[in-house]
Amino acid sequence: ADAAAGKAKAVMCAACHGADGKAQIPTYPNLAGQNEAYLVSAMNAYKKGERTGGQAAIMAGMAAPLSDADIANLAAYFASLK
Amino acid sequence: ADAAAGKAKAVMCAACHGADGKAQIPTYPNLAGQNEAYLVSAMNAYKKGERTGGQAAIMAGMAAPLSDADIANLAAYFASLK
Repeated sequence: ADAAAGKAKAVMCAACHGADGKAQIPTYPNLAGQNEAYLVSAMNAYKKGERTGGQAAIMAGMAAPLSDADIANLAAYFASLK
Repeated sequence: ADAAAGKAKAVMCAACHGADGKAQIPTYPNLAGQNEAYLVSAMNAYKKGERTGGQAAIMAGMAAPLSDADIANLAAYFASLK
């Protein structure tokens, strides 16, 4: 995965998850330093509609247009943040 | 919420999420320092069956017996870890 490409793609994530991967909104998860494989699994779960209800619907909309490569790169990027 | 009560309850979580909230299994999320309100929201999503597919089924089983107080205490505990 390409964390640098992930960083470019992550601009749209910063609004909710924080530019540094630390969400200012308490009901949203911090992503900085999260396990890479978990991030891939979670983004795919949103993309496949396996996570529903409340704010999951917002995240599903964000994940929908992401390619597998985008997901891998985003996961590498956020996992690399401390 | 009572982080100390959460710590006692968290013994069962340590197997997958790590005694220090850092999951050794890469497909499981780190919980240490995660946003408290997000942890409550995520545990409730598992409990209400709003998260399905793959490993979500395992976590749903873990969340099922938890009371609202358990969930609040666990969230306070893991959020308090650095």
